[in-house]
Amino acid sequence: MNIFTRTLVAFTAALLLCAPLHAADPLPSWQDGAAKKSIVDFVEDTTRKNSPDFVPVAERVAVFDNDGTLWSEQPMYFQAFFIFDRIKALAPEHPEWKTKEPFASVLRGDMKSALAGGEHALMEMAMATHAGTTTEQFDAIVRNWVASAKHPKTGRLYTEMVYLPMLEVLRYLRANGYRTYIVSGGGIEFMRPWTEAVYGIPPEQVIGSSIKTKFEMRDGVPVLARLPELNFIDDKEGKPVAINQHIGRRPIAAFGNSDGDLQMLQWTAAGKGRRFALYVHHTDADREWAYDRDSHIGRLDKGLDEAAARGWTVVDMKKDWKQVYPFDKP
Amino acid sequence: MNIFTRTLVAFTAALLLCAPLHAADPLPSWQDGAAKKSIVDFVEDTTRKNSPDFVPVAERVAVFDNDGTLWSEQPMYFQAFFIFDRIKALAPEHPEWKTKEPFASVLRGDMKSALAGGEHALMEMAMATHAGTTTEQFDAIVRNWVASAKHPKTGRLYTEMVYLPMLEVLRYLRANGYRTYIVSGGGIEFMRPWTEAVYGIPPEQVIGSSIKTKFEMRDGVPVLARLPELNFIDDKEGKPVAINQHIGRRPIAAFGNSDGDLQMLQWTAAGKGRRFALYVHHTDADREWAYDRDSHIGRLDKGLDEAAARGWTVVDMKKDWKQVYPFDKP
Repeated sequence: MNIFTRTLVAFTAALLLCAPLHAADPLPSWQDGAAKKSIVDFVEDTTRKNSPDFVPVAERVAVFDNDGTLWSEQPMYFQAFFIFDRIKALAPEHPEWKTKEPFASVLRGDMKSALAGGEHALMEMAMATHAGTTTEQFDAIVRNWVASAKHPKTGRLYTEMVYLPMLEVLRYLRANGYRTYIVSGGGIEFMRPWTEAVYGIPPEQVIGSSIKTKFEMRDGVPVLARLPELNFIDDKEGKPVAINQHIGRRPIAAFGNSDGDLQMLQWTAAGKGRRFALYVHHTDADREWAYDRDSHIGRLDKGLDEAAARGWTVVDMKKDWKQVYPFDKP
Repeated sequence: MNIFTRTLVAFTAALLLCAPLHAADPLPSWQDGAAKKSIVDFVEDTTRKNSPDFVPVAERVAVFDNDGTLWSEQPMYFQAFFIFDRIKALAPEHPEWKTKEPFASVLRGDMKSALAGGEHALMEMAMATHAGTTTEQFDAIVRNWVASAKHPKTGRLYTEMVYLPMLEVLRYLRANGYRTYIVSGGGIEFMRPWTEAVYGIPPEQVIGSSIKTKFEMRDGVPVLARLPELNFIDDKEGKPVAINQHIGRRPIAAFGNSDGDLQMLQWTAAGKGRRFALYVHHTDADREWAYDRDSHIGRLDKGLDEAAARGWTVVDMKKDWKQVYPFDKP
């Protein structure tokens, strides 16, 4: 063989080696079944050239809820654990909290009483712990917390309690030209410090609830100060509003797990051409949690009915997922 | 020559042909001088491997004001012309406008009186013309307007009155891995329908002022209704706030032309590492307009002082730009 022939042979061999890679299962943690097939069919139909459902790359936007869709949300939203930990950390600066509810309950370790005041109490605690810093200080606080805080049941970092099958969906979509956004009721600045490392989703593709910030000069240095004032709740009817505000395009695909995601799925599915809407249904009390219509967190009631009526994909976590968390044994 | 040698020769020839292409001037409409050099130096310093100022691609964010920075803004913001045209178009549905100010003045063609009420009057007219539709209907209205409305002085489409040298900067930055965002006091949904075609800036990279929208079901179809209620003013202190909200990263480079951009430039320039801040100074009464410290529109007063104090680039439109609009003769 001369050098050219040898190059050609090497090239052909490389191609042959690549072939199985391309044909590899993009969703190995998913059981073969209707849910997995619906995802693969959707991606292939919208990205194959000459497909009647072809979607140009610029339009390939997929939106994902976070709590209960990409990571767990039981026994309470992980951001609530962050709030409680922050109250404990800030307590020395707030001696009045020892006798002031709901803070006093948190400091006694009585989370049930702390949450008894409902949304109002939670909001009060959120403001007390999320405001009062600059954006850069808050970023550092969140980074420290996610690097060390452990979930009470699994003993794992919260960022380890992400769903392997959904990480595969994120990767699969991006490999096919989709931009993947988070659209979550969680705090936008609570998520941004870690979503890139954990999900491959950069800050500019994270949409969430927010408090107001204010531009200020401090000793000649400009900062953004976080204020104890609500800016936007990115839940239910707020999700399509926020998608329009941030992205300015209607998504092609939407993934959620609760009634809080219903309007986002409706908005996505109502667009022209091929669309995709998927609900993760928490059915696995052994490997994760089982809850739906009566749950206080992540209630999925109207959404289940609408999914059935409209033919959306409903993932049965117990049956459809071979593995839940990356640290589980397959 | 055997086929391998021939391939090698062809490859080498292709490389040689490419060389002049790479060396081509990325900013041909700019006069050689300090302003042009500062842009090229910045881009090369932040993108050259092993440069001490190297910025990873993910962090390469550049923000641009729109009115007066990417397109003209005289004798009034182009969006004000849109508002007046909408008032005329909507007048048959609003017989009360014939006797109600500021609408009556607009309908008589007396723009000066229409604007005499200042910001309050302008806001009233903006709400009356920007709300009351769905987001999709408003998108179509804007598209129709920019495709047909002409500027009173030049007789050109407003989207033709963009600055060729700034189009070159946008392209040059993007060719070097920068993502280019608009951060404008103008309406976000007034800009998004045309910025991709005119500037190559997609909707998700457009940030602007906004009114509130509301998710509604109409005959079973979800829509976003535009409400006559202010959501956010993306000007002055609002610009860094909006950048943080939308992008979640501090820009590396910022381009503006007025005191309304000052905080955005300060916020950008105060970041760690190499940063770039540039003001377009309107000095060309012949080819465009000349105005700065005393102008009611696009006032540049504090910004000029701060630019001088901090060594920011100030573009002298008359001296630094060989050509202003793409339709001008070079």
